[in-house]
Order: sequence, then C-alpha cells, then structure tokens
Amino acid sequence: MNTLVIGASRGIGLEFTRQYLQETGFIKVFATYRHLSPELEELAQQYPERLALLPVDVTVEAEITAAIATIKTQTNTLQEVVYCVGLLHDDQLQPEKSLRHIQSDNLTRYFQVNAIGAVLWAKYLLPLLRGGDRPIFAAISAKVGSIGDNRLGGWYGYRASKAALNMLLHNVAIEWGRVAPNVIVALLHPGTTNTNLSKPFQKHVPPEKLFSPELTVSQLRQVMADLTPQNSGEFFAWDSAPLPW
Amino acid sequence: MNTLVIGASRGIGLEFTRQYLQETGFIKVFATYRHLSPELEELAQQYPERLALLPVDVTVEAEITAAIATIKTQTNTLQEVVYCVGLLHDDQLQPEKSLRHIQSDNLTRYFQVNAIGAVLWAKYLLPLLRGGDRPIFAAISAKVGSIGDNRLGGWYGYRASKAALNMLLHNVAIEWGRVAPNVIVALLHPGTTNTNLSKPFQKHVPPEKLFSPELTVSQLRQVMADLTPQNSGEFFAWDSAPLPW
Repeated sequence: MNTLVIGASRGIGLEFTRQYLQETGFIKVFATYRHLSPELEELAQQYPERLALLPVDVTVEAEITAAIATIKTQTNTLQEVVYCVGLLHDDQLQPEKSLRHIQSDNLTRYFQVNAIGAVLWAKYLLPLLRGGDRPIFAAISAKVGSIGDNRLGGWYGYRASKAALNMLLHNVAIEWGRVAPNVIVALLHPGTTNTNLSKPFQKHVPPEKLFSPELTVSQLRQVMADLTPQNSGEFFAWDSAPLPW
Repeated sequence: MNTLVIGASRGIGLEFTRQYLQETGFIKVFATYRHLSPELEELAQQYPERLALLPVDVTVEAEITAAIATIKTQTNTLQEVVYCVGLLHDDQLQPEKSLRHIQSDNLTRYFQVNAIGAVLWAKYLLPLLRGGDRPIFAAISAKVGSIGDNRLGGWYGYRASKAALNMLLHNVAIEWGRVAPNVIVALLHPGTTNTNLSKPFQKHVPPEKLFSPELTVSQLRQVMADLTPQNSGEFFAWDSAPLPW
C-alpha cells in the first residue's frame, strides 16, 4: 500500500508522514511540501527508499500535475491521501478578530490555500485512488468551519475557507460516488493540536483539550479506519462524532 | 426610509430597485452597478430625485468606500440593504459540470464576486444600518449553496462561494448581534428566477417553479418583512422555509 500526504513539512501532515513510515504496511509514502522543514528532511534521510518528497505549492496547478506525474512513475495506486495544508496565520496575515480587519487579498489567500488547493488535487487523484481497497481521500477541515456550530464569530477567512472546503469535497464525494463507489472522501476536525497553526491561540485551551500531533493523528487514523463508503462526503471530529455543516 | 441595492443592473437587483421605487415609503433608493443597463438607466430618468446610481465593482474595496462616502453625504440611515450581486456564468466562465472543469482562477472569481464582495460591504454598513427601525442586510444566497442539501454535485465554484457567503454573513450576524441587536442579517434563496443568470439552465425547470423577477422579489420582501432580530444570521427560502447549511 502507498500513501500521499499533502502538506507534510510541519504539524499534522508531518506526523501523518511519520506514522505511515512507522508502519511497514505502507511501502511508499509520498509527501509534499512548500518549504522543506528540517524534520521532514530528516525523515527522508531515515527512510530513503520509502519516503519520496515532492515540492508542491497547492496554489499552482502545474506543481500539482508535476507531482502527480512523478507519483505515477512509481505506482498506480494510492490507498490513502491526506490533505493537511492549512493556513490560519503567517507573516502577512492574521485571522480577523472583527469585520474591520477584513482584507480582500487575505480572504482570497485563505480560499486558495485551504479550499481550492484540495479540489485541484482531487481533479487528478481518482485514477490513483480507485484501484485501492477502500481507498480514502481525507482533508483536515475544522469545527470552526461549521456554519451551524458557529457561535463565536471572528476568523472570517479561515471559517469561510473551511466551509468552502467542506462544500467542495462533499461535491467531490458525490461525483466520485457515481463512478468509483469504493472511494471514501472525508472531512476531519482534528481538535486543537499543539502545532504552529494553533500556537498563538492556545491560551484558553484546557490542557486536556490540546492534543499532541501524535495523539491527533492516531485519533484521526482511527476515525478514517472506521469509515465506510456510505460515509463518503461527511464531516467528522477526532472522536468520530458527526459535525453539522 | 432609504434603501440600498447592490448589483442593481439586472435580474433580481433591478427588480428590487423597481419595487422600492414603486413604494413612496422609500424616499431614497441607492443602487449600484458594474455595467449600467438600459433598464436601470431608464429608472434613473423616471425617478431622478429618488434613485441614486453608484458605480461599484464589488471586488474593488475602494469603489465600495467611495460609494459609502457618497451615500453618507445624502443620508445617515439605510433601512434595507440587499446584496444581489451573483456570478454563475459569463463570457469567461461556465459552472463546472465535473472536476475536470475545475480552474483555480475561476474558483477565485466565484469567491470574490459571490462571497468576498458581500463581506467587504458589511465592513462599512453598520453605521448606516444601526440607526434604522428593524434594519436588514439581506444577501441573495442559493439552495445549491447548502452543503447538507447537496445531492447532485457539480457547480463547484458557485456552490462553494455561496456556502462561503453563508458562513461570512452568519459571522457578520454574530458580530453585529453584540453591538446592534436590532439589525437583521439574512441569507435568502430566491428560487429559480427567470433572469440571465438562470437562462442557460431553465430547460428542466417546471414552469410553475420558474418565477418571474416580480414574483421572486415580492416573495423575498415578504420573507424579509416577517424576520425578527432573533432570525439574524439564518438562511431562508422564498417561502420562508428554513434551509440547512
């Protein structure tokens, strides 16, 4: 079995890569990065035969198709694909506390990285997934991307881009369900995980609700293992609880 | 009472403008357009004192702030604001029948026009709305933007941009609810309306389900009239039925 982690440099994506490599059942692990991290580089040195690193900025479709072409020279089947790319803050942008922080360019970037990137990948993944046994394409969504669950407000771009991701992958599940009903598409809420993404916002998170990346990925892999094709296109939390749109 | 129609050149926005002008209760009607239509121009000639036309491309924040500045020279209160801008197809873009039609630039345009434009307006509207008596900011959303209701798939960009619009305005409702609890934010599904937007897709719509713009706007104005601040941030169809996210 082979697997692909999209956005593997840091955080949850890095930990998915690590856990896949620890299991001998996954022969080949493909991992994409935009900025190569020392941790991912170290894994590549540790597993030179099994880990293939691919440079991909998910906002550039040509980089996605180049990576797909490289993967196809090495396998024609992916058993699991996980979209772990996610933007909440960086040097240029902070989540909006209120409407007055709204900037069109920032909103566009949230949509391009958190939502559009996933569906650009989906455009090319089906031939690689459909040959597998109960193959799965999972994306890291977020409970703050649930419109029905939203009570607090704020974080306009992050919330709306995750809601858009939910719609796009729900739509992918419908389309794939017609031609490849064995493939599962899943939207997953990881819970607050101790990564760079959540670091500035951990102050009010009780310690038992701040998961290590190890725990988060173990939990998400358990959720993924329990899914059936009947669940395709649905949205689940780390404890398998279904989440409202 | 004064009102503002955003995207008034054609279709539902043009008809909102017409109906507001037919009621003497609305003293001043502000109407924005990107491309001035003959129909809107004719209304301006017919109601030179009451209709003020404002050129605004909703993807350009400076054009929104210029329009807001013009409105503020003439009034400090808007009773109703309706966001009628909506992109489904044009010369450059058609809704995606399937994943293979996905184009990053097209998805970005859907988000910018259908979702980001509305929240850019919201950034500046509260001072004008909060002085009114049960003021309302309504946006034309769409049932195909409901993730939970989606059974058919396709139309990736349109669906995801309307889901994003729903999240953004739900978020606005939460933020405004804290400081101006009299203001209502509403997301409205108009039903299939006989406009340029739906024209290429009317073939399988039964005649009784294809509304004239007159009927659609009358129905939506009835829905709006029945809303209370407790409904702020919710999503309703033309017949007042609540819609799932």
